[in-house]
Amino acid sequence: MQTVFFDHNSTTALRPSVLEAMLPWLTQTHGNATSRHVFGRQAREAIEGARYQIASMVGVQASQVVFTSGGTEANNWAIKGLAAQLTPGQLLISAQEHPCVSKPAQALAWHEWQVNAVASDVTGVIDLAKLADAMATPTALVSVMLANNETGILQPVAHIAEMARKHKALIHTDAVQALGKVPLNMAELGVHAMTLSSHKIGGPIGVGALVLDKRVDIAPLLDGGGQERGLRSGTENIAGIVGFAHACQLAIEQLEAYNHHTQALRMHLEAGLLELGATIFGQHANRIPNTSFFAIEHIEGETLVTALDKVGFAVASGSACSSDSAAPSHVLLSMGVAPDLAKGAIRVSLNLNNTLTEVNAFLSALQQQVHRLKNLNAIAA
Amino acid sequence: MQTVFFDHNSTTALRPSVLEAMLPWLTQTHGNATSRHVFGRQAREAIEGARYQIASMVGVQASQVVFTSGGTEANNWAIKGLAAQLTPGQLLISAQEHPCVSKPAQALAWHEWQVNAVASDVTGVIDLAKLADAMATPTALVSVMLANNETGILQPVAHIAEMARKHKALIHTDAVQALGKVPLNMAELGVHAMTLSSHKIGGPIGVGALVLDKRVDIAPLLDGGGQERGLRSGTENIAGIVGFAHACQLAIEQLEAYNHHTQALRMHLEAGLLELGATIFGQHANRIPNTSFFAIEHIEGETLVTALDKVGFAVASGSACSSDSAAPSHVLLSMGVAPDLAKGAIRVSLNLNNTLTEVNAFLSALQQQVHRLKNLNAIAA
Repeated sequence: MQTVFFDHNSTTALRPSVLEAMLPWLTQTHGNATSRHVFGRQAREAIEGARYQIASMVGVQASQVVFTSGGTEANNWAIKGLAAQLTPGQLLISAQEHPCVSKPAQALAWHEWQVNAVASDVTGVIDLAKLADAMATPTALVSVMLANNETGILQPVAHIAEMARKHKALIHTDAVQALGKVPLNMAELGVHAMTLSSHKIGGPIGVGALVLDKRVDIAPLLDGGGQERGLRSGTENIAGIVGFAHACQLAIEQLEAYNHHTQALRMHLEAGLLELGATIFGQHANRIPNTSFFAIEHIEGETLVTALDKVGFAVASGSACSSDSAAPSHVLLSMGVAPDLAKGAIRVSLNLNNTLTEVNAFLSALQQQVHRLKNLNAIAA
Repeated sequence: MQTVFFDHNSTTALRPSVLEAMLPWLTQTHGNATSRHVFGRQAREAIEGARYQIASMVGVQASQVVFTSGGTEANNWAIKGLAAQLTPGQLLISAQEHPCVSKPAQALAWHEWQVNAVASDVTGVIDLAKLADAMATPTALVSVMLANNETGILQPVAHIAEMARKHKALIHTDAVQALGKVPLNMAELGVHAMTLSSHKIGGPIGVGALVLDKRVDIAPLLDGGGQERGLRSGTENIAGIVGFAHACQLAIEQLEAYNHHTQALRMHLEAGLLELGATIFGQHANRIPNTSFFAIEHIEGETLVTALDKVGFAVASGSACSSDSAAPSHVLLSMGVAPDLAKGAIRVSLNLNNTLTEVNAFLSALQQQVHRLKNLNAIAA
């Protein structure tokens, strides 16, 4: 039995042509990009080409893209590195941030920062009235994600950036789940820093970037050999960086096809889910096209994930990054979903290579499993 | 013309069988190791297998190995993460540490720490009398590298660890340049933390590890999804980790052959260098077998590296990680080498795949270039 992969917000398979672009850097050539000899110069050229490619796709200059080991490092760095150059004050985040933003933010609270997590409204969008209220207190830094990894709901980051700038605060956005799913332009968003990751768009795991406003001052998180103009030391992951740029290029080229395809599949999926009596979180919100987050009353999400895995469907019960935890999703709680219903949450995240046949098979498997689990519940009760 | 690669302390080519071990994780499978579905479980199994493999090779239990994005991250983390859990006090490092140890150490000096860099004696070994003197001041943390990246000189880390423990200080060692070149056993060294890197031993760039004593308390540097038992968040780089373990396995299996081969080549190289009037730094010190660091009076290292590159030899003028800088090597200055001579330093770092023919060709090319450059100098004077 071939398991259907419906967990693309967690990670995506490396695209064959991305691997092809990486292979020369995994086979023939061996240079450290800091070295002055021919191998080093070739590596440097490949990295700078990749940097230019990614920069132009998000509407910035190459010098604004700093490569990291992934989204987690970029988010940790953004929060800690920007805060280090600011006078401690208020840091505002949304209550639905990924832990790699919220935990570094919490850590700042031990160092003279006032950290506030602003809740979402019932539609899953950060509560703008509460955010405005919070900004009445002088604010130094704001971090709001562009697309939520669990619900897929898009946040009004451009508007929030305007608010932040009016209050002379710096603004960072975690755009990891938005890249390749919606058009992405740093200038249009108006943010000072933006996090990208490679492995969510068919690129390799272990590489990401922090895109920075030119005038912004940030302290390095990794110090050492002075790579990335002193902002991020460590031997550059050439193959990873080249693969990331290639995946980025493909994602942007196929953005329209991706939207068309995944949105059609999701509409079909959600029509079926509603028939099964599911609650779809953020159903009417502006969402990335590939993500559906739902629950069926009285069925535990964890139990359903396990049952679906056994019959050939890989889905998530929440953020894959924190699915070790059995607590209900903080994202759903932040939008006022009852903890009992939140514990039932299941995420399906689609990709270009998923098919209508798979969605139909999933719906029928889901119906069977829900039926079986409800019967078990009835027996237990 | 095929350029001969004599810069293996900077980076090494990925070994073909390492790439082979990685390929399943770059092609067929796509799992985030935190996910509970079948893809996630397969990824988790591969990572835990790799962790076990590396752990057993350095004489620790699997739970003591924490994967990072490389040596730079592991060294930054060791210094900052260990310091964060200690009462600020004295931090002792050797004056020849890589910048990814010395710079994080310097940063601690702004946060209540007293940081002292202990100089080397003329043989290139950390001055143990000075170190003992420094330890008269209560010391919380010590970091001394096992093998220096420029000179290849081995430091008496086991002895230093004993001294540190007597003073109730924690001890970290950067073992990046020692792995695969000398036997490496954490218990024998007696350190609390040890940094390893993959791409110096034929593994992929972008992965490394910090090996930790079980009783040691360390704060995470990257926080978020809680991977690596909460010590290092971020989606695990499965292919990288699997490749690292495979490279480690090969390096340990071939340790004797590596030593025999590179030492023989180096003896031949250094006999030729002495005939050319070169000064070999740390010539009589206990060194890793593959590294020769030397200078020829009145010839600039940078100039010679460029000249040798043009005639087909890739060597380094110092640490590749800081070869952007034109300053004389801090490693040589720490052992009392005159700045003028230090500026002439050239590093040849060999590997199993280098040959006697290559060394002979290098010696003859070097002789020609030195002759040419000396003539140019004479004309200029």
